[in-house]
Amino acid sequence: MARVFNFSAGPATLPQSVLERARDEMLEWNGVGASIVELSHRGPEFMEVAARAEADLRALLSIPDDYAVLFLAGGATTAQALIALNFAQPGQPADYVVSGHWGKTAIKQVAPYVDARIAATSEDNGFHDVPPPSTWTLTPDAAYVHYTANETIHGVEYREVPRVDGGTLIGDFSSSIASEPLDISRFGLIYAGAQKNLGPVGVTVLIIRRDLLEREGQPRAEILDYRAHVRGESMLNTPPTWNWYLAGLVFRWMLDEGGVEEFARRNGRKAALLYDAIDGSSGFYRNDVAAAARSRMNVPFFLHDEALNAEFLAESKAAGLLALKGHRVLGGMRASIYNAMPEAGVQALVDFMRDFARRRG
Amino acid sequence: MARVFNFSAGPATLPQSVLERARDEMLEWNGVGASIVELSHRGPEFMEVAARAEADLRALLSIPDDYAVLFLAGGATTAQALIALNFAQPGQPADYVVSGHWGKTAIKQVAPYVDARIAATSEDNGFHDVPPPSTWTLTPDAAYVHYTANETIHGVEYREVPRVDGGTLIGDFSSSIASEPLDISRFGLIYAGAQKNLGPVGVTVLIIRRDLLEREGQPRAEILDYRAHVRGESMLNTPPTWNWYLAGLVFRWMLDEGGVEEFARRNGRKAALLYDAIDGSSGFYRNDVAAAARSRMNVPFFLHDEALNAEFLAESKAAGLLALKGHRVLGGMRASIYNAMPEAGVQALVDFMRDFARRRG
Repeated sequence: MARVFNFSAGPATLPQSVLERARDEMLEWNGVGASIVELSHRGPEFMEVAARAEADLRALLSIPDDYAVLFLAGGATTAQALIALNFAQPGQPADYVVSGHWGKTAIKQVAPYVDARIAATSEDNGFHDVPPPSTWTLTPDAAYVHYTANETIHGVEYREVPRVDGGTLIGDFSSSIASEPLDISRFGLIYAGAQKNLGPVGVTVLIIRRDLLEREGQPRAEILDYRAHVRGESMLNTPPTWNWYLAGLVFRWMLDEGGVEEFARRNGRKAALLYDAIDGSSGFYRNDVAAAARSRMNVPFFLHDEALNAEFLAESKAAGLLALKGHRVLGGMRASIYNAMPEAGVQALVDFMRDFARRRG
Repeated sequence: MARVFNFSAGPATLPQSVLERARDEMLEWNGVGASIVELSHRGPEFMEVAARAEADLRALLSIPDDYAVLFLAGGATTAQALIALNFAQPGQPADYVVSGHWGKTAIKQVAPYVDARIAATSEDNGFHDVPPPSTWTLTPDAAYVHYTANETIHGVEYREVPRVDGGTLIGDFSSSIASEPLDISRFGLIYAGAQKNLGPVGVTVLIIRRDLLEREGQPRAEILDYRAHVRGESMLNTPPTWNWYLAGLVFRWMLDEGGVEEFARRNGRKAALLYDAIDGSSGFYRNDVAAAARSRMNVPFFLHDEALNAEFLAESKAAGLLALKGHRVLGGMRASIYNAMPEAGVQALVDFMRDFARRRG
């Protein structure tokens, strides 16, 4: 069949033009007689690819010069563990805001390393909202305050950067990085697994304010030490070169499309289209998230009659709408509509949803 | 230009048929309307790819059932650190055999975690040989004995599995896994970054005897815990799916070509061809490694006149022989001739070397 609209939460859809270029360069990159996946990470060819990717990401996200950028393996979960090892003293308090599933996993990873304190949580209301920053209970000597900007499973999002007076703010932006302009100078560190909004699985981006690298942290192997990775320019060991290369193609595509301002507009229109279809379905579909906290990236929704779920999934798949099944934690449906999901894809989804509701309503 | 013979030490050359398949499936995998790099790691499509890759690797390497297989991110260097965290008590002695550069890095990674003892080293003689197992000084209560089966930079290799009576043997097989039959039951654990002999960069294979997983190890985050990775079937977090997929294509290619027995024959012929050309050059080329320890995978060699290095590299590149420059630690030249390097590639290299020597000798 032809390519479909793929609503997977991550690994997620990629721009077709990026995949076409990766395909065309698979056997030979830039006339050198070998694929980029076959070339040394320390050779001039990949060094050029790596430098270009970092420069493009810095331009795309307006990353200030006093922030280091890392491209590492291991995913956001590894970053969650290493943040504590690198930036907190053993057993030091660290504040965690829990607005969904991933905020909880972040705490689980640091349990051996810090005194993780829940500064706020919306678990009592089923993560249908985000705890307002004004209600966060911050610890004066906390190493940092960690929150999840967008919760991929629960579909809630902080749209404003929280104020943590004097504290070091760390944000997990795995599922919303580059979806709209962001003032990075407000953060000590942001991180993101690339497989949602930056493109390919297998590489993780960290953006670290350089003064954090002066913290001693905890005893750790060199390969778990962000200072060493910064010194080594993300090549302390062999990095996931192909994934870094593909991320670079996605960064270039985002710049060519108009940058994060343009994606903010598109993402706003896509989210409005889908939430309007849900809210205007006279109860056939339902999203339980408080309006102001609704994620623009991940839209969980439920059919009023769960017995229709299997039919909805089978028919949507047949209609060229892939991976709408909700995460097992929540059930129901979920549509992930990252930067690479075209507006036509969301339009096709809402057209299908309306048709399905009409036929089964 | 056309594809060349690529002697890179890793990331390294891949079978052309594997790259062609990756190219053909880049926009759409198996008729599902999306690339494998865009699909959820927990969906039926990738689960099938992952299971097939493990089954093929088990067949290829004759992995006994009481060994778990992991496909993880982070490279062999991360594995070096995590081995100590997972399988040694804090500060417990662990024996390390150092036969080259990577044996040294292995020790560096575990410095915060164990009492690393050098059981043997060949550094005094410039790593021109491997310390014979009969000379290893083993610690009775060591957590394990670690050695590097093949040293990628220094070009030395253990061809026999060392006997460590009653001890737990751990082998870094990054640059020689699957190059010949291996009795895995002799090991507690072997590991390998895939970017040399298993194909693609970005995924690391660990083969762990399951009883090791009962060891308590040291306090560590769940994401650094191999027990959790085994329970989670390498999907504790999002794995590097595309890299895993590509590794699977390489496993299948190796099986189709005749398995490790056939590659052992080919690798023997390739290494003999190249070492004979060096030894038969009347001193124009030189390899300093003791004959019995010469690596079949990585062949460092030197021109008698180092002033000719630049010409050698320029002319060999023009002749379609890529990446022959030696590692910066040693200088000179290095030809990496892993499984995916065809015999025709090594023949082309020795033809060039003889011609170059004739013209400049």
